[in-house]
Amino acid sequence: MLDGLVLSIDAMGGDAAPNIVINGIEYFLKHEGKNRHARFIIHGDETQLKPLMAKAPLTTGRSEIQHTPDVIEMDAKPSYAMRRGKGTSMWNAIASVKEGEAKVAVSAGNTGALMAMSKLLLRMKAGVQRPAIAARWPHQQGFGVVLDVGANLDCDANQLREFAVLGEAYYRALYKKDKPSIGLLNVGTEELKGNATIQAAHDSLSCSKLGLNYIGFVEGNDISMGDVDVIVTDGFTGNIALKTAEGTARLLGKFIKSALQDNLWSKIMSFLNMPALARMKKRMDPRTGNGGVFLGLNGIVIKSHGGTDAIGFASALSVALEMADSQFLHEIERTLSALHDEDESMEIHLP
Amino acid sequence: MLDGLVLSIDAMGGDAAPNIVINGIEYFLKHEGKNRHARFIIHGDETQLKPLMAKAPLTTGRSEIQHTPDVIEMDAKPSYAMRRGKGTSMWNAIASVKEGEAKVAVSAGNTGALMAMSKLLLRMKAGVQRPAIAARWPHQQGFGVVLDVGANLDCDANQLREFAVLGEAYYRALYKKDKPSIGLLNVGTEELKGNATIQAAHDSLSCSKLGLNYIGFVEGNDISMGDVDVIVTDGFTGNIALKTAEGTARLLGKFIKSALQDNLWSKIMSFLNMPALARMKKRMDPRTGNGGVFLGLNGIVIKSHGGTDAIGFASALSVALEMADSQFLHEIERTLSALHDEDESMEIHLP
Repeated sequence: MLDGLVLSIDAMGGDAAPNIVINGIEYFLKHEGKNRHARFIIHGDETQLKPLMAKAPLTTGRSEIQHTPDVIEMDAKPSYAMRRGKGTSMWNAIASVKEGEAKVAVSAGNTGALMAMSKLLLRMKAGVQRPAIAARWPHQQGFGVVLDVGANLDCDANQLREFAVLGEAYYRALYKKDKPSIGLLNVGTEELKGNATIQAAHDSLSCSKLGLNYIGFVEGNDISMGDVDVIVTDGFTGNIALKTAEGTARLLGKFIKSALQDNLWSKIMSFLNMPALARMKKRMDPRTGNGGVFLGLNGIVIKSHGGTDAIGFASALSVALEMADSQFLHEIERTLSALHDEDESMEIHLP
Repeated sequence: MLDGLVLSIDAMGGDAAPNIVINGIEYFLKHEGKNRHARFIIHGDETQLKPLMAKAPLTTGRSEIQHTPDVIEMDAKPSYAMRRGKGTSMWNAIASVKEGEAKVAVSAGNTGALMAMSKLLLRMKAGVQRPAIAARWPHQQGFGVVLDVGANLDCDANQLREFAVLGEAYYRALYKKDKPSIGLLNVGTEELKGNATIQAAHDSLSCSKLGLNYIGFVEGNDISMGDVDVIVTDGFTGNIALKTAEGTARLLGKFIKSALQDNLWSKIMSFLNMPALARMKKRMDPRTGNGGVFLGLNGIVIKSHGGTDAIGFASALSVALEMADSQFLHEIERTLSALHDEDESMEIHLP
């Protein structure tokens, strides 16, 4: 039997699974998770996992394999995953959380399937309409949290408000900050900007007595500045903003590379300037932000990017461990229930 | 009387007007607009403009001032601008286009006021519900066009389709490409992704016989890749995507700067590598993309960024000149009418 904080891992999800998963755990145990007593239940095909684990001594020492030969394909539809997913490595990884064997599940598999199974197995917290996906967003001082980034395309004001509560609790659990600031993503910061839904969410967050540190509307450029900790938006806008930022970062990376290699002189100079460039590359590394968290369920599920490598997967494991080591689930239960009490006492009816 | 292509300029709009406006015209005539025979009607306060023009010989030779002492404040509400805007430099700049004195108007003033006055004075093209604002977006090979970036927060499928037609004609006018590709911004490229509005717009663009080069859904990261020329989205998402990209670029710029200046060695090496860094800076310069165009009106109005400098303003003038030198207005008239004929024959009813 394992002791310490237990993470449940879908070893078969992701473009380069199970290799990057096992290597990711090994990397994590060597670095970020060195003294954290994390332990792992690894769900996957034993015949593929054993040779990999033979080369991963730290992982072997802190894990048990639960043999699961079946896998959900990366392009499976959520409906298919729900009908036929039972007994796959993804399903079992979530089931370990449901059954209390593990505190958090991590998968780099298909997002739609993972969300569908998570909802089915873990169910929503009382009062939550639908779960949200929260992403970490690099900024000048560290990371902000943006949600929803794709689970809910059309959101009403009530949902946006729930995201504020969920995101705030997530930020506190992850970064141990007492009163993280919350902003509502809009096309301008003036009170009158935005559509009816945004306006209603703004009004109710502004009037709330829950003690949230709500600072009002923020704009797209504020996300990267780090002046706000939690950015709330609907899943359509959040998904597009996140991917737009990724695209912009990739483009600038290419500009930098070509600028620094345009001629021999640049090449020599860039070589001599290696340490600075390496530092820059590290700060721009998208792998450090890997790991989207499903919020609003009776359990914590973390989605790693499907195309990530071992270092990226290790980064998702860091998030998983912080969440496992927090009071997140209890806290949101308390706040969500206060939120709904407030609604009833104020007789707020949101569009 | 002026000959050549005439641009009408609101000299008093923008944070540093009229200085950056006059210096922008001068810069433009010295560089991009050198042999293009552009001429200018400059609307603004003569007492402020004359000393500036005394130091701008090229501008003086190709401009006439229309004295207009009144100015719309940068923070004026659109409703106020419509009631009290008559006789301001912004109003008169648009009126010059209405009266046929100039082909295009350019202002760095308040966006809401400029849009309200443009609609009032120029009116929408037959069949257009509301104008859109199109932005140029830098990518690997040059620029893409994204619309709407803020004029219409809630859009139905018909509007998205109109944006496709308007954006396509704009791209052709600006970049002289015969069949620019058009993509619809969504949270995924698979056919089933997105909400009902996006789906309906996709269906009707896919079925259209107008000969548009519609390539289907694109994602946020595709905007910077340059694989698609015209990206269609609603004004809420477009505005947030644009500002998010600006914020990301600014953040990475800061990362680069701090990485390259972290210690003396980096500083010396960066200095030696100046030409490559200057090239990189130039490619990342947001001023080259300045100039949002209002599409769908009986006349062309260009909004320069309010905080831009002379080089940025010159960049908006380049867009203005290309538009003035194109058949844009005739072309969209033809395409919009074909679009509506198609609707009637197909009896499409979009949500």
